[in-house]
Formats: sequence, structure tokens, C-alpha cells
Amino acid sequence: MKNKVFLDAKENALKSLKDACVEGKVDEGILPILNLINRIQGFYTTSSCAGRIVLLQIPQIGDKHGATFLGIWHRTIKPDELYTAAVKSTTGLLWMLAQAPILHIGAETPKQADKMLKTAISCGLKNSSIKSLGKKTIIEICSTERLDAPIGRDGCVFCEENYLSLLVEISNEIIERSQEKMGRFARKLENISVFL
Amino acid sequence: MKNKVFLDAKENALKSLKDACVEGKVDEGILPILNLINRIQGFYTTSSCAGRIVLLQIPQIGDKHGATFLGIWHRTIKPDELYTAAVKSTTGLLWMLAQAPILHIGAETPKQADKMLKTAISCGLKNSSIKSLGKKTIIEICSTERLDAPIGRDGCVFCEENYLSLLVEISNEIIERSQEKMGRFARKLENISVFL
Repeated sequence: MKNKVFLDAKENALKSLKDACVEGKVDEGILPILNLINRIQGFYTTSSCAGRIVLLQIPQIGDKHGATFLGIWHRTIKPDELYTAAVKSTTGLLWMLAQAPILHIGAETPKQADKMLKTAISCGLKNSSIKSLGKKTIIEICSTERLDAPIGRDGCVFCEENYLSLLVEISNEIIERSQEKMGRFARKLENISVFL
Repeated sequence: MKNKVFLDAKENALKSLKDACVEGKVDEGILPILNLINRIQGFYTTSSCAGRIVLLQIPQIGDKHGATFLGIWHRTIKPDELYTAAVKSTTGLLWMLAQAPILHIGAETPKQADKMLKTAISCGLKNSSIKSLGKKTIIEICSTERLDAPIGRDGCVFCEENYLSLLVEISNEIIERSQEKMGRFARKLENISVFL
């Protein structure tokens, strides 16, 4: 017997994704894998993010709501792009982040969720987990590579250019490595239409 | 009906914890919450780590096996302690990490796991998730605060002292904030003996 709650949720998610695509709100790099997952019976994608490099100003640690984005790049970057964004900082802590892609996937049953989770982990996406069971079962697919470095405070960048270049170089490597793993995961999903 | 697999796993876990305590291998700061969780029917703790500040040398990003620890502190630190450890670096990338405490908890059923997960999240431990369903159900309890900053390469520390002091200050705040959240979680668990 089909689970109506799941099927309704999948229908809504697919509609939202279609709308987001029309509005240009979906990172192009991540769309093929979202389509692959949505084709598989028993799963649908919700919020997702292609890997990104971020320059962020926050009043204090953990204060997400007070955060101002000075730069967001869903790709590798050049040191100049970081310098240009960093000079815009004013008050609070300035952080540079490199984040691997994140996919959120709804699953019809916990058993299917566990299967998807183990598939992701086998592709090197070792930070993957189940974020919620209960009414909705949501899996998060993510890699472990990341950089979270404070680089300045109150409008003053504390690091010299050669250090910022190192951060950019490592951030670019994080983006490339984590996207490679996501590609490996996509290839595994390509030949699957029913997971269990 | 009792689940024999679960009860055997809990018995083994409690024995391992007791042995680890005798050998002095358990961070004292985390022991009270481990005891609280192990007292609750349907749960046991496995590997856990009190929050820590780490200075790490790795050949390349993600190469955990090639990593050398130059300093591990399960407490807040002074900048001098970091400088003294940093001069020991030789080759590869030098990273400074501040990591929130992590608890791994086995649960008897997915339903209980979800309840424990939601309790942790309600205490601000928002990076918590279910790492595995299936034969064993394992929950990871963790906060979101973290710092992962590369600070040098091939024996050369790229940052000046005032920047390293900022990293120490932020790392100390991460340790304190995440331990506060763990304390809130412990207080919630204090009055619970059966979760469901």
C-alpha cells in the first residue's frame, strides 16, 4: 500500500523544485543529481546546496540571524575575489567558510533511508546522516571536508595576503574534492529506479 | 518483549566504559552525562569525546590516517600553549580545530532514537543526527560551533601572534558554549528514567 503522506510530500517537493528552477534559484551544478534522486521510487529532494565558499560577518559566534554575507561563490575562486569582498567588512567577526554540497532527501521508510545513507557513505560522503524520523524521514547527504576560519574582526583583516591565498587554495580543493564525491554518488544512483 | 541484541550491546558498552574509566581513558568532563544516559532504559553510550582544541599536521586535506597530533586539549587554552605546540610542525598542512563535544548513543528502537534526537536539538545541539539504523541504531549528539582553520604549511606558521590569539579566543568560546549546551541536555536527562 502506498503511503499517501509520503506521496503528497513528494508531489509538493517536486512542484517547489520546478518553481525554484523557473526562478533560477537552484544551483545548476546540483540539478542533475536532484533529478536522479527524484526519479527513484520512495525518495524526493528538499532543500539542497551545491558546495560553496562564503565570506561572512557575524556579531558573535553562533549568531546566524545577525550574519551578513559579504561573498558567496558556488565555485572555486581567485584570491582577488576574496580580498575585494573582505574589505567590505565593518563590525563583528569575519569568517571564511568552505562548505561541501548538502542534499536533503525525504524517504518513504526508515529502511530505505538507511539504504540511501549507506550508499552515500560508501561513496565517501561520510558526514551523511538521518536528521529526522517520525512523520517525515529526512536524510542529509554531506562530505566531511570543510574550512571554518575566522580571518578578522571589526573591519580589520588579521591575515596577510599569502595566508589568505592559502585559505583560498584549500577552499578550492574542498569544493573540488567534495564535488568529486557527489559525482561518484550520482553515478551510483544512475542505474537505480527502485531502491528496495 | 526485550530485544536481546540491544541488551547484549548495552552490557558490552557498559563494560567497555568501566574498563576505559579504570584505565583513565575517559575525559572526566563527559563522564557524568554518560552515566545519566546509561541509566535510561533503551539507551547506552558508545564512543564519546569531550569538546577539544586540536593542533594537527596532515599531508593533505582529508588524509586522516596520515595526521599527526601536535596538541590536544580537552579544555580552554592560553595562546602560549598553541605557540609552543605549533613550532613542532614539520611538513604538510597545519590545522587548528576547535570541536564541540560528541556523544554516540545506541538506542533500542528508531522511535526512541528520534525522541532522544529531538531532545538534544531542543537543547541547542543542532548538529545531532542518527548515524545508523538497521541492526544497531546509533545517534550522534553534537553542537554546530566549530573552527577548522589551516594556519601553516611545511613547518612555517603563516599567522602572526595577534591572529593566533584571536583563534585561541574563539576556540575557547566554542568549547565553553558547546559545553553549556551539553549541560542543558544533561539537566533535561536528569529526571528521565524511561524515555517512551
